[in-house]
Amino acid sequence: MLRCTACGREYSLRKPYQRCECGEPLELELFEGFAGIGKSVWERFIQFFPFELDLDLSLGEGDTPLIRARKLSKKLGIQLYLKNETVNPTWSFKDRGTFLGIHRVLQLGFDKVGTVSTGNMAASVAAYASRAGVKAYILVSSNIAEEKLKQIAVYGAEVIKVRGDYGKLYYESLKLGQKLGIYFINSDDPFRIEGYKSISFEIVEEMMPDYVIVPTSSGGLIRGIIKGFLELKKSELIDRLPTFVCVQAEGCSPIYKAFIEEKEKIERFENPHTIAHAIENPYPPSGNAVLRLLKKLNGICVAVSDEEILNAQRMLAQEGIFVQPASATGIAAVKKLREEGRIKGDERVVSILTGAGLKTLHQLGRFEVREFEMEKLEECLLKS
Amino acid sequence: MLRCTACGREYSLRKPYQRCECGEPLELELFEGFAGIGKSVWERFIQFFPFELDLDLSLGEGDTPLIRARKLSKKLGIQLYLKNETVNPTWSFKDRGTFLGIHRVLQLGFDKVGTVSTGNMAASVAAYASRAGVKAYILVSSNIAEEKLKQIAVYGAEVIKVRGDYGKLYYESLKLGQKLGIYFINSDDPFRIEGYKSISFEIVEEMMPDYVIVPTSSGGLIRGIIKGFLELKKSELIDRLPTFVCVQAEGCSPIYKAFIEEKEKIERFENPHTIAHAIENPYPPSGNAVLRLLKKLNGICVAVSDEEILNAQRMLAQEGIFVQPASATGIAAVKKLREEGRIKGDERVVSILTGAGLKTLHQLGRFEVREFEMEKLEECLLKS
Repeated sequence: MLRCTACGREYSLRKPYQRCECGEPLELELFEGFAGIGKSVWERFIQFFPFELDLDLSLGEGDTPLIRARKLSKKLGIQLYLKNETVNPTWSFKDRGTFLGIHRVLQLGFDKVGTVSTGNMAASVAAYASRAGVKAYILVSSNIAEEKLKQIAVYGAEVIKVRGDYGKLYYESLKLGQKLGIYFINSDDPFRIEGYKSISFEIVEEMMPDYVIVPTSSGGLIRGIIKGFLELKKSELIDRLPTFVCVQAEGCSPIYKAFIEEKEKIERFENPHTIAHAIENPYPPSGNAVLRLLKKLNGICVAVSDEEILNAQRMLAQEGIFVQPASATGIAAVKKLREEGRIKGDERVVSILTGAGLKTLHQLGRFEVREFEMEKLEECLLKS
Repeated sequence: MLRCTACGREYSLRKPYQRCECGEPLELELFEGFAGIGKSVWERFIQFFPFELDLDLSLGEGDTPLIRARKLSKKLGIQLYLKNETVNPTWSFKDRGTFLGIHRVLQLGFDKVGTVSTGNMAASVAAYASRAGVKAYILVSSNIAEEKLKQIAVYGAEVIKVRGDYGKLYYESLKLGQKLGIYFINSDDPFRIEGYKSISFEIVEEMMPDYVIVPTSSGGLIRGIIKGFLELKKSELIDRLPTFVCVQAEGCSPIYKAFIEEKEKIERFENPHTIAHAIENPYPPSGNAVLRLLKKLNGICVAVSDEEILNAQRMLAQEGIFVQPASATGIAAVKKLREEGRIKGDERVVSILTGAGLKTLHQLGRFEVREFEMEKLEECLLKS
């Protein structure tokens, strides 16, 4: 059964429902169970997923490293851990959700899948669709950079450039999908959320955090992570919840704006502009759902500037992990919350590093590099 | 004790020896042990490594997925598995070797590390050096593309462009390193080899292959993989060895050339030219060592064309994994060996996918993409 996150109305699992008539996103019930033994998180937490998972469709998503930040922990006086989602099969957290989403597609008997994305999700859906042998339609905006297009098209999906208001395409795609028998695994699809839960399971296998920091765009990721923790608590595998921190870029922060203004609904963010393109969604489809969760669970919402983001990106590279700007927002937020005294000394913080910096190389500035003749190399090395 | 792979001469571990006076590479003895329980391969195979490993220096390298090739297995009538090294922390297999290499640096009490590379290894050394807090010098060729430079410089290493014969820089760097107290973790450093063994351990934890296919440049990777299997056999954890296949690109194939001409030593490959830049080494420092191993163990050597490589890259993307051209050489080789009947029906083959395609996006050709107004989207989806 799928249930509306707002009004509670129920929908059958037999049909491809994704959003309630009231406009809000649907979700599955809270699963309960215990943790088992297995190589993959899908096997260890098998009781928490809505299907029997076909591991032959898996590309090995999930089970990513939780890395202690050596320098930042010391600098900030906290225990900071980095959940490195950049080492997923298509180098972002999206793969966890796509893996579940592809199961949903096959369960419904569909042979066509789609998504609306120009970035991480597009590549992820293209890859898994190809693996599962279903046709994929990836709807991108017409001004997509050639570099991004290649990351998607290489997997063999049909990429379609759409001219017009790209913000409306999310809703348009769901309508067309219902009509044409294409399942659009968009950013906050109920089954995508089920995949993201696995991040919470893996974190708790290693440690119990005081804070979990989540860069937030559509709201799908943070919804999944919160659902994971709620299920662990309901199953009595943990006895308390961490504080959830929703992070947005100042230049596109509709959830943050509604949060500080104590509104119940987000409004479209006009003229968005941030370097963190992967979270630049002016009208997040799960925005209201995230607001409800933050309110209910005493969560926090933070917005950070492009300058803070770029600074955080450099700091993460010094820890050994090169992320895209959107993924660095979490660290910028941690720094801010620590300076404000919200996060206390020695508290345990996990920040989700959502996607690889390799995907956004063009956004890096130039670096100073010295140049020498080979004969002068010794001199050069002595001097530096 | 370090021992020469050719003449057997021994060297103390207390000093930073890397190559024998006879010119050939050194290596550590064959370790023996049993497999234990642990989250990381470093913990499970702790008895096989030369140090107590400091997991706080780890970025979560290794423990990569072994993925069944669904389409290619069927097409070629074999059981083909893909060892996906593109999901390592800096998105190539190099991280396994660098992790061990950094331990060697610290063991020797050095505070400076270097490498000669413009690609995967450069990024890897830069990342781990930064994490470990040692200064890193990355020597790149002066014509390095800005895109590649960024992937290295972002980690905060000192990148130095060197004008002159880049091929000689490997030997020059070792000399200068000894003199100036900089440990150059180059491609076939004895401790790097120890890190690559972990690939073999992980494969055998899941299945026993008939063939292991390794894209080969310096020779460091295949030497490590072979050493891993030899140690497993010596430890009686396996009862036979797979057939090892060394793959080179036709456009730069010094090991292949010496192998088919049944020579004992490689010669410098003149005017190398291949799309597989990551394995474009005209004078591989472990070339002779690889020849000796292939001869002793009845290994195979194959060379593949750029066209075959690009074709294999596309086929891998259809399985869901986007690799750099060098990493696709293995699949091109498998296809060739299968067509020649060298690999028999239903045999079990593991191909090592060495590095991520994101690193070489510029090498992908253009893709055909349709473009529509949003109002025409339904029509477009119906037609395709």
